[in-house]
Amino acid sequence: MADNRHRSVFLQDVPLQEARSRFERALQNANLWEPLESESIPLEQALGRVSAEPAWAKISSPHYHAAAMDGYALRAAETEDASDRNPVTLLVDQQSQYVDTGDPLPDWADAVVPIEDIEVLYETQMTQEKSIRLMAPTSPWSNVRLLGEDMVATELIIPSGQKLRPVDLGAIAAGGFDRLQVWRKPRVAIIPTGTELRAMGQPVKSGEIIEFNSLVLASQVENWGGIPDRLPIIPDELEKILDVTANASIDHDLVLIIAGSSAGTEDFTADVVESLGTLLVHGIAVRPGHPVILGMIEKTSKGGAPRLEKPIPVIGVPGYPVSAALTGEIFVRPLLRRWLSEQDIQPELITAELVRKVHSRAGDLEYLRVTVGKVGERWIASPLSRGAGVITSLVRADGIVEIPAGIQGIPSGENVAVRLYRSRQELERTILALGSHDLTLDLLAQFLSMRGSRLSSGNLGSLGGLIALQRGEAHLAGSHLLDPETGEFNLPYIERYLPSIPVVVVSLVGREQGLVLAPNNPKSITGLEDLARTELAYVNRQRGAGTRILLDYQLDQLGIDPLSIHGYQHEEYTHLAVAAAVASGRADCGLAIHAAAAALNLDFLPLFQERYDLIIPKEYHESAKLRPLLQLLGDTEFQETVASLPGYSIDRMGEIVAVMD
Amino acid sequence: MADNRHRSVFLQDVPLQEARSRFERALQNANLWEPLESESIPLEQALGRVSAEPAWAKISSPHYHAAAMDGYALRAAETEDASDRNPVTLLVDQQSQYVDTGDPLPDWADAVVPIEDIEVLYETQMTQEKSIRLMAPTSPWSNVRLLGEDMVATELIIPSGQKLRPVDLGAIAAGGFDRLQVWRKPRVAIIPTGTELRAMGQPVKSGEIIEFNSLVLASQVENWGGIPDRLPIIPDELEKILDVTANASIDHDLVLIIAGSSAGTEDFTADVVESLGTLLVHGIAVRPGHPVILGMIEKTSKGGAPRLEKPIPVIGVPGYPVSAALTGEIFVRPLLRRWLSEQDIQPELITAELVRKVHSRAGDLEYLRVTVGKVGERWIASPLSRGAGVITSLVRADGIVEIPAGIQGIPSGENVAVRLYRSRQELERTILALGSHDLTLDLLAQFLSMRGSRLSSGNLGSLGGLIALQRGEAHLAGSHLLDPETGEFNLPYIERYLPSIPVVVVSLVGREQGLVLAPNNPKSITGLEDLARTELAYVNRQRGAGTRILLDYQLDQLGIDPLSIHGYQHEEYTHLAVAAAVASGRADCGLAIHAAAAALNLDFLPLFQERYDLIIPKEYHESAKLRPLLQLLGDTEFQETVASLPGYSIDRMGEIVAVMD
Repeated sequence: MADNRHRSVFLQDVPLQEARSRFERALQNANLWEPLESESIPLEQALGRVSAEPAWAKISSPHYHAAAMDGYALRAAETEDASDRNPVTLLVDQQSQYVDTGDPLPDWADAVVPIEDIEVLYETQMTQEKSIRLMAPTSPWSNVRLLGEDMVATELIIPSGQKLRPVDLGAIAAGGFDRLQVWRKPRVAIIPTGTELRAMGQPVKSGEIIEFNSLVLASQVENWGGIPDRLPIIPDELEKILDVTANASIDHDLVLIIAGSSAGTEDFTADVVESLGTLLVHGIAVRPGHPVILGMIEKTSKGGAPRLEKPIPVIGVPGYPVSAALTGEIFVRPLLRRWLSEQDIQPELITAELVRKVHSRAGDLEYLRVTVGKVGERWIASPLSRGAGVITSLVRADGIVEIPAGIQGIPSGENVAVRLYRSRQELERTILALGSHDLTLDLLAQFLSMRGSRLSSGNLGSLGGLIALQRGEAHLAGSHLLDPETGEFNLPYIERYLPSIPVVVVSLVGREQGLVLAPNNPKSITGLEDLARTELAYVNRQRGAGTRILLDYQLDQLGIDPLSIHGYQHEEYTHLAVAAAVASGRADCGLAIHAAAAALNLDFLPLFQERYDLIIPKEYHESAKLRPLLQLLGDTEFQETVASLPGYSIDRMGEIVAVMD
Repeated sequence: MADNRHRSVFLQDVPLQEARSRFERALQNANLWEPLESESIPLEQALGRVSAEPAWAKISSPHYHAAAMDGYALRAAETEDASDRNPVTLLVDQQSQYVDTGDPLPDWADAVVPIEDIEVLYETQMTQEKSIRLMAPTSPWSNVRLLGEDMVATELIIPSGQKLRPVDLGAIAAGGFDRLQVWRKPRVAIIPTGTELRAMGQPVKSGEIIEFNSLVLASQVENWGGIPDRLPIIPDELEKILDVTANASIDHDLVLIIAGSSAGTEDFTADVVESLGTLLVHGIAVRPGHPVILGMIEKTSKGGAPRLEKPIPVIGVPGYPVSAALTGEIFVRPLLRRWLSEQDIQPELITAELVRKVHSRAGDLEYLRVTVGKVGERWIASPLSRGAGVITSLVRADGIVEIPAGIQGIPSGENVAVRLYRSRQELERTILALGSHDLTLDLLAQFLSMRGSRLSSGNLGSLGGLIALQRGEAHLAGSHLLDPETGEFNLPYIERYLPSIPVVVVSLVGREQGLVLAPNNPKSITGLEDLARTELAYVNRQRGAGTRILLDYQLDQLGIDPLSIHGYQHEEYTHLAVAAAVASGRADCGLAIHAAAAALNLDFLPLFQERYDLIIPKEYHESAKLRPLLQLLGDTEFQETVASLPGYSIDRMGEIVAVMD
């Protein structure tokens, strides 16, 4: 807490390219910008490893002429005249010999006739002398696998630098190997730092955080072919971090120190790197993720300690989870690829239309997470939360758009290149829902995933969803818009906002709207009338949300001036976020659905019933893509699951409320 | 050897669809056509596993309002009037409080101002009373991570059926989990059978075969998420195979019996399956791979043994390696996907032009292996060896073309759908070389692979290569065609066969051609004149091969009638295959290059020097794709490696012999 610990050092963000080249140069100087050593391993363990030597066949395969069928080996020339009318008879063991598939061809034979094309004759029961009869000639080398048919000794089976697949291993074994030189897996130490961190599975109090960055980084390292080593959490103490880092550099190829990479009072990573070696970069102009540290560890303790045999690269990884995961992708992955001599596989790129404008900090390269879907013939990219702490944005991301440094932002409607996280195939079958958020959409997503389909939903509020449909940016919109004049839901709004698009309106659920209250209602709130009480703090929904329209309508009926309500300006984007605001004490009440209050164990004062519909353009209502979703609305298990949520009614689920041409 | 062991049972090949549906029906009846049980595992072990339950957040993240920056927490309202001219001063610990990133926001505060935007003032050194000064207002909730910013308790983090990625694990941990239910990995027993089999790494005699099918199948199972269990090799003895199979079915989910699935004297798999349960299918109309067995094991020994708790599926896998690997893909993979509830990811399909006609057995579905490359704007597919024993054809295959049953073949030039084994990206940077085969091409492939490029070479002989260039089917052709009239190499042929395509002729190597002989030359061959000796067996190259043209020219000079040469009709497609024919005793001599004789420790009688050139259409000679290859021709390490091969000269390597417009 004491300000005398404040650093005078502030981050000097350098451009990503500059950071990369400083790091690469230092690695090159240490002969570390190349594959690590190779090691010989048994083929049984070589799946997915990268060959460090070419495999040239040591033996031919087959290494002898082999029968390719069960049958009789013989000399083709002796069958030349055989026909139905003039069968040829050959003595067994003199002129012919039985062979199983894979048996070596006798030296004197040059063909095999399959057993089913042969008649076996016995001269007498006594002598057991035997012969075979053929009705057709055979050609030389028929039904014979010639020596070297598959490979001839000295032929190249696989080059070095090949990631070994099952058939590669088979072919290498066929060439006479049982071991192979592959590049050694890099060992990566992962050190989470932070006094506030708690290991997964432990209860957390306010101010404590579950440590999962090391799990994400370890899983990335494993995916990329390294051996991760997650070390225990270290509190923010310079000496401890220094000791653990120094020790880790003795038996690892790369050290990742998580958090403490910024310039705050408890950020020691830069000091640690400077004490043990060279600090190359402190701060990179990328968002999210800028307080990245790059350096080389050269000795195992401060001061005049002996130098390491070779320097060990160290990366200070920012503590925000999105920054941490992206730092892995930007710096750890290329290094591991280089060390494993793996081909750099560029992810698939597609061009998509960005549907909301994005402002960006001009000096920084930004990695913008987006969802991607195909609506009609257009690929659509919608920006996700840009917070560095929102790891769910990476879970939900279908791809990344890079906004180069020097650009202030991207206008809506612009085409952007998206680096895909999911296959184009998966995205092609994804249903895009924009509009009002409802828990039922999460359930739909869950049930659809078990049926090989996929629902990606974005929350823009009910009106936002209708506008998105009008712009052709979604396959359907969830909406619960009350028309103050008619008391009808959705239909009047569709007439106004979707004049040119024929739609089918399908009822999803009926919902109870009401006030979410702190447990036991400490402020004794009894209805919307209480919102005028000046000591109360309200939490609102954003403009365009059905719940906001409902509130404004009701306030108007009650003659309450919205601007007189304390907290009317505080907008949240989901029911759950409203409930969360009440749970945290930031607000005393907010209008939301019953289920949101129940989710956070809050009190609920029911006020209204509303209809939540799916608005589906006719074109998509009839498409194969939406069929699994529409079928689910009639599925008993799905209906029962929804009905078990508090405040939900499924009476009209799946009913076509209107068809509007 | 005794024919009384011949079976009366012949295979009844059924169509693939029929086989699949019999198998699926039997699995359904046993409740095995669905995911196996789930198991709870720690998140640390869950990478790549498939979730068997949705993860709904147990806690919110963050679970309190947290400072998003190092700085001072304060009430935004108190900063409202701050400006350069009118700074606002707030007392520390009363009106403001220092917070590190991640610290909880004090109850009374609603914003954080970053440390760099604040001036710290000390009233006196004695009291240490402190205040902060601000020059600008701040808005409520700025630099605060609100409770639930990432996720609110009860929100869906990931659905069930999701293959878990690093960020998924992080998000699940953030939601309060340290374990998750995932689908159990299937245990697969793999039983290699065959008296002739030897384990990898053991020496093999004639008639003995290295057992590697179990390695390929085990690696496939591992790749597809199962736990493979490779059992020791069992000889072809009914009782032993029966015992091992019965035991394996007790503690595995699937049993694979390799080989013995045909109808020969030593094929016991069908008997074993019938004795222990139900034989569903014996023989499927697919090529390669038809003697596949599908069945269910229902008890642990013959006769009236007690039934297993649930039947265990068993697959009799053909012994030919290509058939074995394809059987894995066709039957094992879909079963494992089903058991693991994994989405069926269709491999990428492209449309390519088939450059050689293919005849197919009309009754069978054929899996045709092809190489794929992009020449100009056209995707080109060339068929590889179709032998069921040629595993290198799967190693080299870039994709598979399915030729449906009922079709007699596909004409050259037809567009076909290719299921890709490599990424389109990798194939786009692949250099296609067709024409004469040379060991240097293998070395080029090896060196290019280390430079991130790829060479795929197909052997059509020198003339075949020129014709392929004329048709636009390759980026370059290797050629060593002697013109009998001028004594010049290649150029006259290019004028004749490539009249309309401007090419650059680049010398690759000089080579020694001569007769490959058995060690110590037992037949005392001293020159081509000896080929007229009737007791000698010659092995020839195919028509269009440069070596064949060389031979025919020299025979003409010597006045030897080719048809008088015993073995003139025996054509092989590579130098190494010619050497292999001599090594096996099938031929006494053949014309080939020195290196081929050396590779198999054979004698060599040098006769001619020839020039082996790369013929490269100008368009590709100047392309980025070929640059790494052309650069290699000047690379010292590459040159030294080639020069160390017997009979090779690199004097003119890389020299442009001619530019022909």
